[in-house]
Order: sequence, then structure tokens, then C-alpha cells
Amino acid sequence: MKIHGRETRTIWPAADGSGDIEIIDQARLPHEVAIARLTSLDEAARAIRDMQVRGAPLIGATAAYGLCLALRADPGDAALTHAAATLKATRPTAINLAWAVDEVLAVVAPLPPAQRLDAARIKAARICDEDVEACKAIGQHGLALIREVQERRSAERVNILTHCNAGWLATVDWGTALAPIYAAQAARIDVHVWVDETRPRNQGASLTAFELGQQGVAHTIIADNAGGHLMQHGQVDLCIVGSDRTTRTGDVANKIGTYLKALAAADNGVPFHVALPGSTIDWTLTDGVAQIPIEQRDPLELTRITGRTADGRLATVDIAAPGSPAANYAFDVTPARLVTGLITERGLCPATEADLLGLFPERLV
Amino acid sequence: MKIHGRETRTIWPAADGSGDIEIIDQARLPHEVAIARLTSLDEAARAIRDMQVRGAPLIGATAAYGLCLALRADPGDAALTHAAATLKATRPTAINLAWAVDEVLAVVAPLPPAQRLDAARIKAARICDEDVEACKAIGQHGLALIREVQERRSAERVNILTHCNAGWLATVDWGTALAPIYAAQAARIDVHVWVDETRPRNQGASLTAFELGQQGVAHTIIADNAGGHLMQHGQVDLCIVGSDRTTRTGDVANKIGTYLKALAAADNGVPFHVALPGSTIDWTLTDGVAQIPIEQRDPLELTRITGRTADGRLATVDIAAPGSPAANYAFDVTPARLVTGLITERGLCPATEADLLGLFPERLV
Repeated sequence: MKIHGRETRTIWPAADGSGDIEIIDQARLPHEVAIARLTSLDEAARAIRDMQVRGAPLIGATAAYGLCLALRADPGDAALTHAAATLKATRPTAINLAWAVDEVLAVVAPLPPAQRLDAARIKAARICDEDVEACKAIGQHGLALIREVQERRSAERVNILTHCNAGWLATVDWGTALAPIYAAQAARIDVHVWVDETRPRNQGASLTAFELGQQGVAHTIIADNAGGHLMQHGQVDLCIVGSDRTTRTGDVANKIGTYLKALAAADNGVPFHVALPGSTIDWTLTDGVAQIPIEQRDPLELTRITGRTADGRLATVDIAAPGSPAANYAFDVTPARLVTGLITERGLCPATEADLLGLFPERLV
Repeated sequence: MKIHGRETRTIWPAADGSGDIEIIDQARLPHEVAIARLTSLDEAARAIRDMQVRGAPLIGATAAYGLCLALRADPGDAALTHAAATLKATRPTAINLAWAVDEVLAVVAPLPPAQRLDAARIKAARICDEDVEACKAIGQHGLALIREVQERRSAERVNILTHCNAGWLATVDWGTALAPIYAAQAARIDVHVWVDETRPRNQGASLTAFELGQQGVAHTIIADNAGGHLMQHGQVDLCIVGSDRTTRTGDVANKIGTYLKALAAADNGVPFHVALPGSTIDWTLTDGVAQIPIEQRDPLELTRITGRTADGRLATVDIAAPGSPAANYAFDVTPARLVTGLITERGLCPATEADLLGLFPERLV
């Protein structure tokens, strides 16, 4: 997708052939568009932990390239094991992280050390390309859904609410929840997106609004608190969100606050869809609320914020009552009963185990 | 209640006998504790509009004193009518505003102009004192509820979630939703409050956390998005919020996002109570979602924020993607079906017309 009119992905090998990896530094958006260079395992791990990259699919892609950086420094068994463990420990909720690490490991571990780096690079590039293809396919399947909503409500404009950022910045390109919106834009459907601010990290107001603005999609930033009111008043035709981990039974872990929007959608008869590549499904879990680990992050993410002053400088300010403790839960789980449907690269399906297995029959074993 | 250990109300006539009114300037909390002086109708109206005072009961008290300031300048009929209209137009949702203006008008309008100012001052002082008494009574009735929850769950610590600020800063003293918590503290019950940040104005993180901290009540600030997750995991025993306007049928308008918490409470079997003085009930309305006007405020309240920098200065920063539009709905309506009960100065009752009329039989006419 585009930044300032120029096509780019979120992650790519440096053009100088060094094997370094370049990323868009998302911690600095929307205030600055900056490219960061990752030169080591530790820098890749830090980029994930500090959310210079975020979004389950992009975390997976970064972890895959993180293994390449580790192998460049030391292709031996011990280093490989250490690198895999380091990357997996960066963030607990997104399952694509472990998935991508294991995908690369499966390819390189059986090889002699001298052959590992090349194989890892090929595999990491393939993970990225496959993510792009999956997101494109999610966009097309979701487009059918948007057309259907438009016809059913005979609405000229389709109002879609999204939470957090599951756009192209959360993936390698195209996005998950936003891919259908970009597809609708390409199909000349009049879409307008209600963008949840998404406290405490404000990925909605800073990333989703930024990328929709860059792509020229109509949108309005709202407080996370506002979605229920809008749904009560018929101003939301459809909700689409992403997922950081989905159980085989269709429970969905996503950015904290997703569950509240799903409740409001159910209370007001608004369809609530979750867009995700198959790599986000954790086939080992059956009960999301009980089983998915929920990351707790630094409370300072809630009580301190960075923005731009009137004279253009970046400044960080404390916004809460001094001395008051804070807690920062990063995700919540939306039970499958509140999910109208899933949008995967293989098509749409209800959020049930039987339907998911229908789309992914190789998991039946 | 106390600020820096000193007892104070939120509004009072200046001690110099000038008839000026002093308030705690809440727009500057929690960063500065400042007292502002209101010397005219326009200053009182601006204090309400710019949220130097906020909270339905305190808005009412300020409007009553605003009429006093208008009468001091001109006690004639035309000026009185203008003053009442000016004050009522400041904010549309809180019903106490119109209620307090009408209460003062009913006393002073029949009097000759020369007698109006003294009568208005007496009436405004009475509105304040009655608000304090109502809040104290709400505290005692709510205390019984907290004891009951503690016994039913045989919990040592009672975890209460609140949204926005319905503490003593939202009233003249004691508060509505927080009055039961202060009563529980006085009764040596171990209470802990989950404080919703309450975007976009952050009245939770800035005002509720501030006043709970000043009073020494255990509390934790959370993102508005987090309440559902906490309820799913049994970490909330009870929700108590305030109200800006309540229909005779028990629908509750309160700070935007309240409805989402009520949905989560219902989904998880957590009792959801609303604390309000009778002055907050609009006996003319029967359908809150359809009938209560919802204020839309300046989108800059969402996209710009003021805080304190590391070197102690106050700074205001833009936090959203530049150029992206925003919308700022200030309230939403929680249907009575989601409200476990109301806590009024006359006791507890279910959120139904029959039960409300049972407590306020004079409204049966």
C-alpha cells in the first residue's frame, strides 16, 4: 500500500544486499514516517517487544527475519534454539509469532549450519509473500460481505466500524480487517470507516486513521467508548476486526475492547466479523477466555502519551493523576457466540469448530 | 471531601462577601489544584460549557449560582429570562441544569426585582446543601449494597468498577457513584476501585483517580476497553456509575461508554448499579435512547491532550493522524433492562417506572 503516494510493504530485506532487514517504525507513526534497520536478533526482538512492528501477521514475518539475523551471526544449533526462544518470548498473545518461528525452524533445523541462512531467507520471504496473498484473498472474500450488507440494507454508503489496526500496517501488505475495505474502495463502493481510537496505544487514531487517510478512504476517529451509541442509532452497518489468536472453536483474542464492541453489535443486530489468515488459528485451543494468555504491558502506556506540540515538536506528557496505579491489559477474548462470521483467505465461515475445519480440512487429523 | 488533607466543597460563595462564586477549576486537575472565581453570568456559563465544573449535580449548583450573578448585575425580568436561557443552553444532556434553573426561577420570578438576589442566593445555597444531603444518603444506601455483595461473594476485598467521575468533584460534596465507596471506606470495608480512564476527557484518570487518591481509597486506572476482560475473569464484583439524566422508566444517560460496561456486566452476571439524586430524573421521558439529546463536543477533545512533561511543564499535544476527522459523542444511554438497580437518596430500587414512582410518589400525579 501507499505512504505519501509511494508503494511499500511494512518489512523487507535491505536493498544493499547486506541481509539487514528494514521496517517502517510504527512506534513513530503518525508523527513521523521513519524506516528502521534491524541488524541482529536482539534488534528484531526489541522491535517486536517495543511495538515498532505489531499486528499478528507482521509480528510473525518479523520473527521469521529475526531468525535470519540470528543465523547470519551464528548458524549453530545452540544459537538457533536460543534465537527461537528469544523471539517467542517477546509477546505472548499473538500466535503467528510462534507459528512463523516454527515454520522457519522446520526448514532450517534439519540442514547443516552452513546451509541454514539461505534456506531461512527463502522461507522468510515466502512467509511474507504468502501473507500478502492471504490478505488479498481476505479482501476479496470480505468484499462479497460488504456488497451483501449494502444490498440488504439498500444503503448508499456502508459504515464499517473497526477496532485497533488490522490494516496493511499490521501485516506485510493489504491488511486483514481493512483488506475488504480497500477492495471495496477499488470496487467503487462508498465505504466510511468508524475508527476506534484504541487505547491505550491508540493504534486506531494513529495507525488505522493514518493508513486510511493515505489511501483516501473516508473515515472518522471516535473514542473507544462511542461504538455502542453509534450502533444504537443505526450508524454502523458492519463491524470488522482482526485477531491475534483464534481458537479452533472460533473464540477470538484481539486488542482489548474488541469484546465490548462485539457485545454492542449483538445487542443491536449489527454483523460482527473477524478477518484473519489461517496462521492466526491456534488449533490446540478450545476455550479462548480460559486458555489464551493475555499480555499485560507497562502501565505507562496508559498514563503517558506522545504527541506533537503546536510548534511541531514531539513531546511526551503524563496524563493521569500522579501517584495513581494503572493496569494495562493488551487483549481480550470475544467468545465465538458473539462472532457473526470469520473472513479467512479460504473464504467466509461461521465461528464454529465444524465450519473452521470445513475450510481447513487438513486440521481434521 | 479533602484535597491535600483540607476539607472543601466544589463550589461556594467567596468569603469576602462580594457575592462572587468560587469553584475548583476541574479543567486543570489533576495537574494543578486551582480555584477559579466566577463574577458574572457569562463566566458561570463558560465554566459549565468548558467543563471547569462538570457532573450533573455540580452543573445544576453552578447554574443556580449563575442566576445569582446575573441578578446581581440586573434583577429585571428581561435579564432573568436571558440568564435562564443562557445557562440552559450551555450543555444539553444533564437534566439537573434545567432543573436547578427552574427551581431558582420559581422562587425569584414572582418577587419584585429588588428582592430577587437575596432569595436566589438562599435558594442556590439550599440546592447545594440538599445535594450534599442527597449524596450522603446515596452513600448510606449504597453501603448496604456493598455489604450485601461482600457477604454474597464472601469476598474479603470488594472490587468496584466505575466509569467517568461521579465522585464528590461531580457534585457539591460526597458524590453519587463514589459516595457508597467513601461510606464503605468509613465502615472499614476493603474496597478497591477499577477506574475507567474515560476518554475522551479522561475524567476517570484525572478526576476519579485524583479524588480517590486524596481520600486514600485503593484504586487502579484502566483503559475504557479493559472492563469486559476484567468481568470475564471475575475481577469485578459490582459496577456503580452516575447519571446525567434518567428517564421515568429507568433508562440512564451517562458518560459515553457506560452502555458498553452495562452490556459486559449483564454478559458476566456482574451487578450494574446507577447512583443518582432525584434531581437527575427527567419525569417527562419514557425512552432514553430515542428521547435524550446527546451532546456532541469539539473533536479536539479526542485528538489533542494536555499533560505534564518530564520537566514539570504543562504541554498540549496532537495525538491522532494529522488531517483525519474525529467525532466526539459525550454521552450514551443504557437501557433500563441492563441496569440492576438505582441508588437514590430515598433508597434502592429496580430501574422501572413503577419502582421509581414508589420512591417518588409525588410524581404519580
